[in-house]
Amino acid sequence: MESMMIWMPIAMAVLGLIYMWIKQSWVMKQDAGDGKMKEISDYIYEGALAFLSAEYKLLAIFVVIVSVALAAVSFIVPTTHLLIVVAFIFGAIFSAFAGNIGMKIATKTNVRTTQAAKTSLPNALKVSFGGGTVMGLGVAGLAVLGLTAFFIAFFHFFMGGVWTNTMDMTIVLETLAGFSLGAESIALFARVGGGIYTKAADVGADLVGKVEAGIPEDDPRNPATIADNVGDNVGDVAGMGADLFGSYVATVLAAMVLGNYVIKDMGGSIADAFGGIGPILLPMAIAGAGIIISIIGTMLVKIKDNSAKESQVMGALNKGNWTSIILVALSCYGLVTWMLPETMKMEFFGEGLQEISSLRVFGATIVGLIVGAVISSVTEYYTGLGKKPILKIVQQSSTGAGTNIIAGLATGMISTFPSILLFAGAIWASYAFAGFYGVALAASAMMATTAMQLAIDAFGPISDNAGGIAEMSEQEPIVRERTDILDSVGNTTAATGKGFAIASAALTSLALFAAYVTFTGIDGINIFKAPVLAMLFVGGMVPVVFSALAMNAVGKAAMEMVQEVRRQFRDIPGIMEGTGKPEYDKCVAISTKASLKEMMLPGLLTIGFPLIIAFAPLAFGMDTLAIAEMLGGYMAGVTVSGVLWAIFQNNAGGAWDNAKKSFEAGVEIDGKMTYKGSEAHKAAVTGDTVGDPFKDTSGPSMNILIKLTCLIGLVIAPILGGHTNDEAVIIENEVRVEIKQTSGDLAMATISTSKTVDGTTTTEVQEIQGTIEEIEKKAKENGKIVSVNVQKNKKVEVVVESKQ
Amino acid sequence: MESMMIWMPIAMAVLGLIYMWIKQSWVMKQDAGDGKMKEISDYIYEGALAFLSAEYKLLAIFVVIVSVALAAVSFIVPTTHLLIVVAFIFGAIFSAFAGNIGMKIATKTNVRTTQAAKTSLPNALKVSFGGGTVMGLGVAGLAVLGLTAFFIAFFHFFMGGVWTNTMDMTIVLETLAGFSLGAESIALFARVGGGIYTKAADVGADLVGKVEAGIPEDDPRNPATIADNVGDNVGDVAGMGADLFGSYVATVLAAMVLGNYVIKDMGGSIADAFGGIGPILLPMAIAGAGIIISIIGTMLVKIKDNSAKESQVMGALNKGNWTSIILVALSCYGLVTWMLPETMKMEFFGEGLQEISSLRVFGATIVGLIVGAVISSVTEYYTGLGKKPILKIVQQSSTGAGTNIIAGLATGMISTFPSILLFAGAIWASYAFAGFYGVALAASAMMATTAMQLAIDAFGPISDNAGGIAEMSEQEPIVRERTDILDSVGNTTAATGKGFAIASAALTSLALFAAYVTFTGIDGINIFKAPVLAMLFVGGMVPVVFSALAMNAVGKAAMEMVQEVRRQFRDIPGIMEGTGKPEYDKCVAISTKASLKEMMLPGLLTIGFPLIIAFAPLAFGMDTLAIAEMLGGYMAGVTVSGVLWAIFQNNAGGAWDNAKKSFEAGVEIDGKMTYKGSEAHKAAVTGDTVGDPFKDTSGPSMNILIKLTCLIGLVIAPILGGHTNDEAVIIENEVRVEIKQTSGDLAMATISTSKTVDGTTTTEVQEIQGTIEEIEKKAKENGKIVSVNVQKNKKVEVVVESKQ
Repeated sequence: MESMMIWMPIAMAVLGLIYMWIKQSWVMKQDAGDGKMKEISDYIYEGALAFLSAEYKLLAIFVVIVSVALAAVSFIVPTTHLLIVVAFIFGAIFSAFAGNIGMKIATKTNVRTTQAAKTSLPNALKVSFGGGTVMGLGVAGLAVLGLTAFFIAFFHFFMGGVWTNTMDMTIVLETLAGFSLGAESIALFARVGGGIYTKAADVGADLVGKVEAGIPEDDPRNPATIADNVGDNVGDVAGMGADLFGSYVATVLAAMVLGNYVIKDMGGSIADAFGGIGPILLPMAIAGAGIIISIIGTMLVKIKDNSAKESQVMGALNKGNWTSIILVALSCYGLVTWMLPETMKMEFFGEGLQEISSLRVFGATIVGLIVGAVISSVTEYYTGLGKKPILKIVQQSSTGAGTNIIAGLATGMISTFPSILLFAGAIWASYAFAGFYGVALAASAMMATTAMQLAIDAFGPISDNAGGIAEMSEQEPIVRERTDILDSVGNTTAATGKGFAIASAALTSLALFAAYVTFTGIDGINIFKAPVLAMLFVGGMVPVVFSALAMNAVGKAAMEMVQEVRRQFRDIPGIMEGTGKPEYDKCVAISTKASLKEMMLPGLLTIGFPLIIAFAPLAFGMDTLAIAEMLGGYMAGVTVSGVLWAIFQNNAGGAWDNAKKSFEAGVEIDGKMTYKGSEAHKAAVTGDTVGDPFKDTSGPSMNILIKLTCLIGLVIAPILGGHTNDEAVIIENEVRVEIKQTSGDLAMATISTSKTVDGTTTTEVQEIQGTIEEIEKKAKENGKIVSVNVQKNKKVEVVVESKQ
Repeated sequence: MESMMIWMPIAMAVLGLIYMWIKQSWVMKQDAGDGKMKEISDYIYEGALAFLSAEYKLLAIFVVIVSVALAAVSFIVPTTHLLIVVAFIFGAIFSAFAGNIGMKIATKTNVRTTQAAKTSLPNALKVSFGGGTVMGLGVAGLAVLGLTAFFIAFFHFFMGGVWTNTMDMTIVLETLAGFSLGAESIALFARVGGGIYTKAADVGADLVGKVEAGIPEDDPRNPATIADNVGDNVGDVAGMGADLFGSYVATVLAAMVLGNYVIKDMGGSIADAFGGIGPILLPMAIAGAGIIISIIGTMLVKIKDNSAKESQVMGALNKGNWTSIILVALSCYGLVTWMLPETMKMEFFGEGLQEISSLRVFGATIVGLIVGAVISSVTEYYTGLGKKPILKIVQQSSTGAGTNIIAGLATGMISTFPSILLFAGAIWASYAFAGFYGVALAASAMMATTAMQLAIDAFGPISDNAGGIAEMSEQEPIVRERTDILDSVGNTTAATGKGFAIASAALTSLALFAAYVTFTGIDGINIFKAPVLAMLFVGGMVPVVFSALAMNAVGKAAMEMVQEVRRQFRDIPGIMEGTGKPEYDKCVAISTKASLKEMMLPGLLTIGFPLIIAFAPLAFGMDTLAIAEMLGGYMAGVTVSGVLWAIFQNNAGGAWDNAKKSFEAGVEIDGKMTYKGSEAHKAAVTGDTVGDPFKDTSGPSMNILIKLTCLIGLVIAPILGGHTNDEAVIIENEVRVEIKQTSGDLAMATISTSKTVDGTTTTEVQEIQGTIEEIEKKAKENGKIVSVNVQKNKKVEVVVESKQ
């Protein structure tokens, strides 16, 4: 059984996809309602499809360009294999496909939820959550399927399906990184483009419809209302799906890369029942188990009481969520103890090799699960209705929009305090447990419940849409009441889902960062070196500028929308009386065009900066290892700043949103009950306008920015150094040649030959003086030279493999 | 002459202070105007004094507590000398004194400026800029005087006034760091407290006065109007003064510390005409020269034409500013070539010792001057009236406060792009020129014109106040028109001054950071170590939370002010008719009390975090060098994030302010001219309300936060490692013992003995196996052992001084 373990994740993924298909058929079989409902639903479906196909056309061009570039690199740099292009293309296709599944099911489920809400609340939940489940399993299933299939393929192609050595496996994983790069690239555009789309439509619809014309939200007379509903699907559903698809793949990949180095630390090979690659298979196995666990979790989400309130719906979701978290913890215990050697040797930076129990890896996975759970609570505290921060913003709304804005900004900023302390603690703890492999497995464990998280996440916008359809098709109030309950719960889960997405992005980036450093073979990122410090600054700046570009894009696109809506109100006769028909498609077209155009610049910034940092100094002949360190500084800057700005923007946006919503039920300000329509409420609406792009465009984009930055670093790592590069430095356990001093052609070196017997290492040191050639020759007597690195004025190392 | 050079900075400082005194007498002799003007001016003076004395009382307690703590540390850690307490106390006193001079002269000059404006614009400029000059020279003179005097005193106390070795000088400079710490601590509270004060009064006065009661700004009927004017002085004048006083001292100190290591790199001593401490004296000499240059610069600031406009006033200021920058460049060339050896040896991190021409140090100073000039232009572009970013915010105001806020935020965020690239380039270039000594000297050169910068900076709020007094004492319109011209120029210089302050803080922090790393003897800050990375995250979070606390403090204090003003309007009969007298003192008391209370938490955050990071792990027995590296990661995080948030907040605030001001002259929106009172203007006012705490409270506080953080690190460095600590690792050039492997009591080591003759180093390597004692004994045969460090599972180094 153990030897078949490599196929297990694929089997689980296929099971997940089959369950998805069954669930999808069930949802599609539900009643789609009467004529008007269907008509509106069709509009939304077509709008979403129009956006997707326009986006995919554009992305196809992007994929072709990058593929050509990657292919060129693979011809120039002999160590990069052309197969990375294939992996990249499939990563992009799988990601797009996952987004497509999500979007389709979401736009089909919304109207069915409205129809189900006519009968009962439990039914409405069943249908909307069913749609979410399809989305969640689609994303997770495709991620695990794609990654595992390519891993097996490359494992056979490069290594013949059996373990040879760390270096060969590094090539396998490096090529596999192309899959992740493809997925994350698509995610960038899906998140940013979707984010711009949804907010341009939302803001545009509100500014003219609600404010100028005084008609309610989701009113069919508003030409932008369909675009607004399409936006919910392309932004919140497809964007979030692509985001988590990318995180999922990247996390597992990073953990595999680090697992490979664990094997290296243990002497270059281990004897286990899993073909000697247990530590590499483990993250995939956890991901596979997570799919089945998520299915179980989604089955638990149901209510029976037709008169249930938000708390009961929330309780049902929590039940499913907590069950899956506990099951993941149990399965991590089982898999870790089964798949890893009982005691492992692990290199702790600066502390040398240490012998640790594999149970410590389990400890790291628990850290990850705790982070996932706690970050959700933190997010809920800062953005939840009725919580202290929200009440404070409500109070500050009474003195106008200015104080409301200040309070919201401050809330978002303060919320970084517990969140960052949590992340910092998690980095520290999971590293202390099991090094950077521990950090990566913490992320993997957290991400194992991705399917469940997405199901919970996606049901929100579906219910939101269902409510919109109820409104537009003029259903009875009870229908809207029921969808409103679901929508309200959806708002909370949207906020906590964003917390989960940030946490996953943060841990994934750290794992990728660790993989990058280990990969390039540099001995760390020393920010005391001026160029590295300079790049830390530049990296810190990029998320800030990226956010500004995204926000400006929303502003520009919303302005275009405003003008179009105004034009239709003016030019179409009878539109306000409901006799003239608004041209929904024009508004959809504006949002589509604007979002695709505006996502270019942030995309360019994300992809361009790391490439410039890597290749500009290379063109000037700078030392590749120095460049690798600079790029590492840049990655760290982007990650730290990106995580901060993600938390800040998401939570500020969420807080403003719920501060505004608080007025719907009425709030007490200075002893007086205050409601919608009051001056304070208007101030809160202004805050929400600012918060919209924060929480739905720039904030969530930060996740992709930091992940993609680290991934690009990982993909260009072979060019900058690393195992296969002639100029690289690799420290093998066995033999090390250190050139201490060079003066002209002569060098002085020490050759240390270490032998490890039963965990005790003995070292023999030889001193030698002579030309590099002579030193090399002498070193060769002890083993085969793998790589040589000689540079002026530097401590240089010649590394050789020891003779057996 | 050369041997007396150590006294030169003191002489220049005294000259500066004498000139200050002459200028002060001249200003005080000017006509202070009629009864009502004098009365108002006295209110402001008394209010400011009341705040200062309340603040100083509180700070005295703080100084006592920190002194006791420092004294305790100096008893426990034998390498810290008790004199650091004396230096600390004097640093605090000097800083407070400098703030006091500035505040006094500013509150005396304002009314005299109003009076002078009755006669002519040139006179008004002469008086107001004269007041600014007094402030500038007071701050710079006291800074140079105090620092130099203490340096000479400690140099004599610890070294008998002659060069002995790097280690002794390190003790001198370490003790001197107490002076800088004292100065910066006071600066923290002055900036934060002053910032809260001024904005609480401003927002409170505006919300009730302008918005609710509909009376103009600076109307004497508004009870908060005096507090508002006091705020300009305590925030913009005293706060900025304390900020730059701290920067000035810290920059010079950091450059001296790094100069000491330059001497070390050059073999432990140099033979120059300056007693062998040329590289250490150089930064002080530049600072001394800067004082005289600033005097020349201020003399050039004058206009002749009574009908001059803003551009001519700006031109006069620019003339003085540019002249002093050019003169500093020239004097840097002279001083560098005179005071430094023609060729120097400098350790470049990771590249070993390099021989460089001292002209490269001059190159670094030019980099600093360029940064100072360019950052001002960048700031002016993003915040200047009539520039593209401002026009865009104006346009976005037409669709409401929400879009105005988004546009302002985006502008602040985008402005980090050129600013950070500039800083990153400066770090790189100045380091490439002359290592971290170059970075510190870049900062020193930039800071040399501090007196001039402050003069330009302080004249703004003085003119603002003068305008307020003209309004309150109901002068003829021409008076207000003239002060308005000065005020308008003052707004631009305020923005560019903030840019200068950020740039100086950034470079100072980097220099301190470099001094810290060199000081502790760690071999860099490696963010690939998980605890260091975790601290980078924590450090990045602190400026964000600090800003939020400062903003919340303004909100709270403003609310109290609002209630008090409302109460007075309600309870004092005839107040609106001008017959009842408002109780100005009550509002002053509220601002004073609130600001002092609210500055505690941010202060605690700033000081507490580095202490916790240093001492908590120490209590758990963690390795001191590992802690030093963690603290370094924290410092880097604070610096990168702090600089970003400073730029973002200052520029966003400045942009909103000027977007609002644009409406005064009228702006074209959608083809229509729009003025004050329009809906778009109201939206712009909301933006300004948000921008106020951004640009005057939290934004400028970032400077102090980052500098103080790095200073605290530097002061506790001896506890964490460094030259005097028994556990420290110092790599001397000559002899190095490296313990490669320990197993039980036995160790394996190599002893390398290097000899440098005419720049060529030859190394002899011995291999030895035995107990630590045996290795030590063997090493002793080659020289005297300075320190020993043995730790388990670590590469440890025993360092010995070579025999001559």
